[in-house]
Amino acid sequence: MKSDLTIFDRMESEVRGYIRSFPVVFKRAQGSVLTDEADKEYIDFFSGAGTLNYGHNNPVFKQSLIDYLNSDGVVHGLDMATTAKKAFLETVDELLLKPRNMEYVLQFTGPTGTNAVEAALKVARQVKQRQNVIAFTHGFHGVSGGSLAVTANSKFRDAAGVALSNVTFVPYDGYFGADVDTMTWLERMLEDNSSGMDLPAAVIVETVQGEGGVNVASNRWLKKLAALCRQFDMLLIVDDIQVGCGRTGNFFSFEEAGIQPDIITLSKSLSGYGLPMSLVLIRPELDIWQPGAHSGTFRGNNMAFVTATQALRTYWADDQLANDTKRKGELVSQRLQAMARNYPAAGLRVRGRGLIQGLSSTSHPQVAGLISAKAFEHGLIIETSGARDEVLKLLPALTTTDEQLLQGLDIIERSLEEVLIEEGIKTRILKFGGAGR
Amino acid sequence: MKSDLTIFDRMESEVRGYIRSFPVVFKRAQGSVLTDEADKEYIDFFSGAGTLNYGHNNPVFKQSLIDYLNSDGVVHGLDMATTAKKAFLETVDELLLKPRNMEYVLQFTGPTGTNAVEAALKVARQVKQRQNVIAFTHGFHGVSGGSLAVTANSKFRDAAGVALSNVTFVPYDGYFGADVDTMTWLERMLEDNSSGMDLPAAVIVETVQGEGGVNVASNRWLKKLAALCRQFDMLLIVDDIQVGCGRTGNFFSFEEAGIQPDIITLSKSLSGYGLPMSLVLIRPELDIWQPGAHSGTFRGNNMAFVTATQALRTYWADDQLANDTKRKGELVSQRLQAMARNYPAAGLRVRGRGLIQGLSSTSHPQVAGLISAKAFEHGLIIETSGARDEVLKLLPALTTTDEQLLQGLDIIERSLEEVLIEEGIKTRILKFGGAGR
Amino acid sequence: MKSDLTIFDRMESEVRGYIRSFPVVFKRAQGSVLTDEADKEYIDFFSGAGTLNYGHNNPVFKQSLIDYLNSDGVVHGLDMATTAKKAFLETVDELLLKPRNMEYVLQFTGPTGTNAVEAALKVARQVKQRQNVIAFTHGFHGVSGGSLAVTANSKFRDAAGVALSNVTFVPYDGYFGADVDTMTWLERMLEDNSSGMDLPAAVIVETVQGEGGVNVASNRWLKKLAALCRQFDMLLIVDDIQVGCGRTGNFFSFEEAGIQPDIITLSKSLSGYGLPMSLVLIRPELDIWQPGAHSGTFRGNNMAFVTATQALRTYWADDQLANDTKRKGELVSQRLQAMARNYPAAGLRVRGRGLIQGLSSTSHPQVAGLISAKAFEHGLIIETSGARDEVLKLLPALTTTDEQLLQGLDIIERSLEEVLIEEGIKTRILKFGGAGR
Amino acid sequence: MKSDLTIFDRMESEVRGYIRSFPVVFKRAQGSVLTDEADKEYIDFFSGAGTLNYGHNNPVFKQSLIDYLNSDGVVHGLDMATTAKKAFLETVDELLLKPRNMEYVLQFTGPTGTNAVEAALKVARQVKQRQNVIAFTHGFHGVSGGSLAVTANSKFRDAAGVALSNVTFVPYDGYFGADVDTMTWLERMLEDNSSGMDLPAAVIVETVQGEGGVNVASNRWLKKLAALCRQFDMLLIVDDIQVGCGRTGNFFSFEEAGIQPDIITLSKSLSGYGLPMSLVLIRPELDIWQPGAHSGTFRGNNMAFVTATQALRTYWADDQLANDTKRKGELVSQRLQAMARNYPAAGLRVRGRGLIQGLSSTSHPQVAGLISAKAFEHGLIIETSGARDEVLKLLPALTTTDEQLLQGLDIIERSLEEVLIEEGIKTRILKFGGAGR
Repeated sequence: MKSDLTIFDRMESEVRGYIRSFPVVFKRAQGSVLTDEADKEYIDFFSGAGTLNYGHNNPVFKQSLIDYLNSDGVVHGLDMATTAKKAFLETVDELLLKPRNMEYVLQFTGPTGTNAVEAALKVARQVKQRQNVIAFTHGFHGVSGGSLAVTANSKFRDAAGVALSNVTFVPYDGYFGADVDTMTWLERMLEDNSSGMDLPAAVIVETVQGEGGVNVASNRWLKKLAALCRQFDMLLIVDDIQVGCGRTGNFFSFEEAGIQPDIITLSKSLSGYGLPMSLVLIRPELDIWQPGAHSGTFRGNNMAFVTATQALRTYWADDQLANDTKRKGELVSQRLQAMARNYPAAGLRVRGRGLIQGLSSTSHPQVAGLISAKAFEHGLIIETSGARDEVLKLLPALTTTDEQLLQGLDIIERSLEEVLIEEGIKTRILKFGGAGR
Repeated sequence: MKSDLTIFDRMESEVRGYIRSFPVVFKRAQGSVLTDEADKEYIDFFSGAGTLNYGHNNPVFKQSLIDYLNSDGVVHGLDMATTAKKAFLETVDELLLKPRNMEYVLQFTGPTGTNAVEAALKVARQVKQRQNVIAFTHGFHGVSGGSLAVTANSKFRDAAGVALSNVTFVPYDGYFGADVDTMTWLERMLEDNSSGMDLPAAVIVETVQGEGGVNVASNRWLKKLAALCRQFDMLLIVDDIQVGCGRTGNFFSFEEAGIQPDIITLSKSLSGYGLPMSLVLIRPELDIWQPGAHSGTFRGNNMAFVTATQALRTYWADDQLANDTKRKGELVSQRLQAMARNYPAAGLRVRGRGLIQGLSSTSHPQVAGLISAKAFEHGLIIETSGARDEVLKLLPALTTTDEQLLQGLDIIERSLEEVLIEEGIKTRILKFGGAGR
Repeated sequence: MKSDLTIFDRMESEVRGYIRSFPVVFKRAQGSVLTDEADKEYIDFFSGAGTLNYGHNNPVFKQSLIDYLNSDGVVHGLDMATTAKKAFLETVDELLLKPRNMEYVLQFTGPTGTNAVEAALKVARQVKQRQNVIAFTHGFHGVSGGSLAVTANSKFRDAAGVALSNVTFVPYDGYFGADVDTMTWLERMLEDNSSGMDLPAAVIVETVQGEGGVNVASNRWLKKLAALCRQFDMLLIVDDIQVGCGRTGNFFSFEEAGIQPDIITLSKSLSGYGLPMSLVLIRPELDIWQPGAHSGTFRGNNMAFVTATQALRTYWADDQLANDTKRKGELVSQRLQAMARNYPAAGLRVRGRGLIQGLSSTSHPQVAGLISAKAFEHGLIIETSGARDEVLKLLPALTTTDEQLLQGLDIIERSLEEVLIEEGIKTRILKFGGAGR
Repeated sequence: MKSDLTIFDRMESEVRGYIRSFPVVFKRAQGSVLTDEADKEYIDFFSGAGTLNYGHNNPVFKQSLIDYLNSDGVVHGLDMATTAKKAFLETVDELLLKPRNMEYVLQFTGPTGTNAVEAALKVARQVKQRQNVIAFTHGFHGVSGGSLAVTANSKFRDAAGVALSNVTFVPYDGYFGADVDTMTWLERMLEDNSSGMDLPAAVIVETVQGEGGVNVASNRWLKKLAALCRQFDMLLIVDDIQVGCGRTGNFFSFEEAGIQPDIITLSKSLSGYGLPMSLVLIRPELDIWQPGAHSGTFRGNNMAFVTATQALRTYWADDQLANDTKRKGELVSQRLQAMARNYPAAGLRVRGRGLIQGLSSTSHPQVAGLISAKAFEHGLIIETSGARDEVLKLLPALTTTDEQLLQGLDIIERSLEEVLIEEGIKTRILKFGGAGR
């Protein structure tokens, strides 16, 4: 039975997106499985674009939420103090900051990633009293005015209706290929007072560009970036909205590189249950905010505090999830690399860190989208990213079982094979079912 | 027992605001009553800055929410189709649009008011291919880049760290006093091709400026504005985020004026339960969005769809709430006017529509803030607004009982009297307790 | 004999303007008379848009110029020191600054008015470290990026191809009619921190708006503006490019109002001979320029220094020219007022100061342009200004003889009469030839 | 006798620049020789920053100028037609455009280079209806708002007082060394719709960056740039203000590369006599200007038309000057290369085309400025350029005699040697006096 989407077609704006890729009505979600109105089940390798690191409707958090609702805990309180918020603060302190020797104050912005980015950029520009900011090719930071200006994709930029300014885009790690060190490029532009680049207040960077095509910055590159920030008196903002909260293994994606950003933005999987929530971490000496100068009706979402606290206590009191994520990431990566080897004519490349992995083909950019469509038929929800949507992006929940992971990977390989045949891409199939099993 | 706010002081950014006005930790909320950790109760005349039109934790919605959670309904689904979203679309069509002969498509943006405003401005600028937009003195539309540019208050603007452009501010109704018709002013600027005002794509307006000091636009003024928009080929955007959803009586605040905006933004009380949710209504012929061109992780908040649907079905299937709100608004207004008469030395003025009412004093602007602080001691939560926080803003839930309303008004009058005495403002007290009882 | 303009039509850009109004080839100019290729003579009431206050090819200056050329004086020297520049500095000090107790340093910018305005805005913004600037409806300050942003006319603004920002336009004196004090308007916007107007670094104003339609600011209004600048810590920039150098009587147009601007821009008639030259006068304590930070190939035009020095020594060593200009201004004004009275159906109004006078009709805006065209046929060169070119602008040289003035005025009246008849504007002609004779 | 500069110090703004490098008062100029008040003579290797390609007070032009003045030719006429302008148009057609098969219309802007650039950018943005423009590292195009935004040097940019936007800076030829092809870089950014670079309306480029440090673009690089402009539908603007008018040999500097720009800006040496004049050449199909939409009081400088016409007729009726310039350029270049070889410890490098040549040292950037100062003592006027003023820039008049060239080069070598000794830069002097004699 096909879902009836008539009312969506009639009443929703043309701006609607994912409903076009996954044209069914979903009625239920649990862990890594989504179920549509016709009771068809789908493995979810999309996870709300990285929002559901702990799976859909995680039962531990669910109970906390229901308890909170039943107790008439404060649901909406702007930035007034509540018991839920207090518990969250204590937990962040105990489980995130102290163990990592991190000193930051917390700003709760409007509960969207883009609002956290807006706040981060504002405080950075106020501190340095400069307007320019460095952002990177293929970076994505949101679509509200300030964030959009640091977002690279023309699909979003062209919709602004105004010129977006006060940003200099700089090539990300690997942008000109593996041989070109783009940090040298940046250094040259910064030390040359006639490069045309106005001295920036800050640099905003993702350690792995999720929307931009699963581009991974090396630790060396990140360290060099951090060093340039110090050298040229710029603040370093790490936008960890998509790949923070354990996506790459450690809670913060930059831990591996050994850097300490000046400002960090978090959102997406922070609440753990898919509830809107955002957070900006600011080095205390940079916290020059005037009271109330960045407001927002839904900042301090108390239901999200409840599940976020639960998520931290459940998954971040020890290293287990982090280690498991790295192991699963390795499993996924190897399986994808086997596919790349098995279908050499497709020109596939694999990249990623932890459980964000991408499979792309520059020679056949259409393949990623076709696999996504085919996989949906076969019961897998998976999206593409990149400037031309040429990257199949794997974002399974960190809690996905190994079995589900393998099921999903099987569907990907099956879909890949079907697509290559349909596209007439000559390919030598070494063996069916993948090397990984 | 005083609440211990140490951890908030230590860990939260200086940007925190309301916790400073109401320095206790709240643990419970029900209807119009908040309860702090020490079990002290407070009547809520603030309602989450207009987010809780149906009161805290409205029991009808609560049960729907718990049922949805228990059924593992989809909580996070980006803009994929879900049963919860479908029900919401159907309900909007049936209860909001059809009865009013309104034709609009719905865009679900990131679940903050500011994100809805960003989308509205984008689509307007794209449609008209112009960058300038008209906004009004004392207007408030949010603090992300695009919305901030149309927000008048320098407290927010100065925090941007960049110049805010592509906006012309125009005096709101009554800005130069009751004698000056500011629409004549605007007309002159528009018809003069040498006024310096670049032809705007759109006008964005609140029918009552909540944050700006409870400034009420007359129906005549709004009609004239709508006429100028047609005459000069500008789109009319009504930002109904704070005073829509029944705050002034009818569901949409502009119904009384008999105008039909091109674009409408809704948020705050839309979900009914304080859950983050936003919506942009766009006249179908203006819906030129490219698929996915305005994205957002938490757009389409399914839990909010559940409660929003419930809210519409519970309160907007007939006129009862609208009529009751108008009646209560009258009750509040008369009581405030009595206070103004009773304390002539304070130079108080009353203004508002429905259940948004303001009590201000231009001669003694500090009075509003002092009343707010005093009222908090007496168990009432009430905020100020306006450029100098000179307006005491009454935003009780629409579901507040008459008794609670009178209790709250009594506290206001008692606080007012105490403040006037402490401030040494000479005043002739006609009788204690208010004329209204 | 009609001039052959073929090569202009073929080779010049469509941007060419005045050649369309005055389609002949001029070969000679002397005093207030221009002669075309066919030896037809024209009285010049246009004076290079205010550049030729001392007439064309003033014989006194001409000889200085030829002597300088013959002596191989330095013609082009950037901002190196030359004997010509030295003499100019000494003369400015002796004849302009000292007698008026004015203390200013001199900045020689690129030799265009717009470049002087650019420099003035830059130094003001640097001093105050703010980006916004106040400009006025109908103001004209030039068409390069910075100046264009403070120029009100959409004809020029629309050609920018980019959004023009960092400027707030404020209604000029009389913009809403004689009854509305627009300075009260500005004061309200400035003292209200929620007006949407970011605190400006400076105000840029013309005391009489030449291009904008001969709008005259009253002394009272200018004094109030100067007072607001002090009160709100904004710099006052008087753009005296068109109406300085004696056009209104005194050398500086603002002398009559008794104000002392922080920054003054001069150009047009400064060199006296129509040679490109510009000057910014800056109060010494505001001169925070870094050496060379505003450069320009033709700044410090030495030939212009030669004639400018001669102009000051010839005309500004005493009050004779100033007094004569006021007298002639009165003569012109009275004659125009007589015309307005004589042709009541035309709805004519007269305004101006000294020898900048305008004759306009809001009821019949086309009349000004028609008179200009008709007058050209009758041997008078005169232009229109204003947003709709509805103002006939009289800018005769200050050295025009009374006889030439009257000849020109006769042609205007004759042209006016012919135009009114052709346009079928019912009019009772009281007497032919004007009341003034 | 030292010049008395007291009045300059007292009355001129701190912005004054060259007077600090050459602190004497000049009284006379002829050909390549300047004479100060004390009758000391200086050879001029600066030529008004490229404005005096035909030397100071060229006697042929001088006589034309005096004749024109004596005949009372129109000196100031805005953009009305004059006999002088007509003759200039005819000459441009006959001697510049027709022989080169170039089809362009002429726009006479305000008589500064920056104004020509402003007009070029405006028309390009209007034609393409896009705001962004590509400019290059180390590019210089002027200091008025629009031109400043495409100028790279922070000394000028920081003085703006506002953010400069709508420009993307791209590395110029050789910016990352000889091995990196920066056009490949640009191509990548353009073809990637997620590079963050909004599609530009145009590219503005100098073929040799004069102010930027005598950086020479190769013909191959320029051809590739022109090809990218066609491929990505961007207009190509060549700013030939400093190196046009024969400075590199041919009249237009881009002729050698075999490209045809869409828009060309000329100024500086165009009038030939150092008189302010500017010109924009626009491909006829791009001439979408509205009449009068880019105005300017001194556009169409008639005295400059007289000398410009004379300059074209005298020097550009045949190839003689072009060939002589190339020969002299070779002479200068070889002599400078000999110096570089003779003083290896100084790390000198030579670059240039025709008679714009630079001698720079990255290891000892201070040397250029010290040579300039020393040379002035020895009777040579020569300036530095580059981001750190590390390039000694040779800009002798094209009409400089070989003997004067050699005198100047001798002074440079003598100064170089003295500087190297004073700076303690170990150097092996091969022979005194230079290889060139």
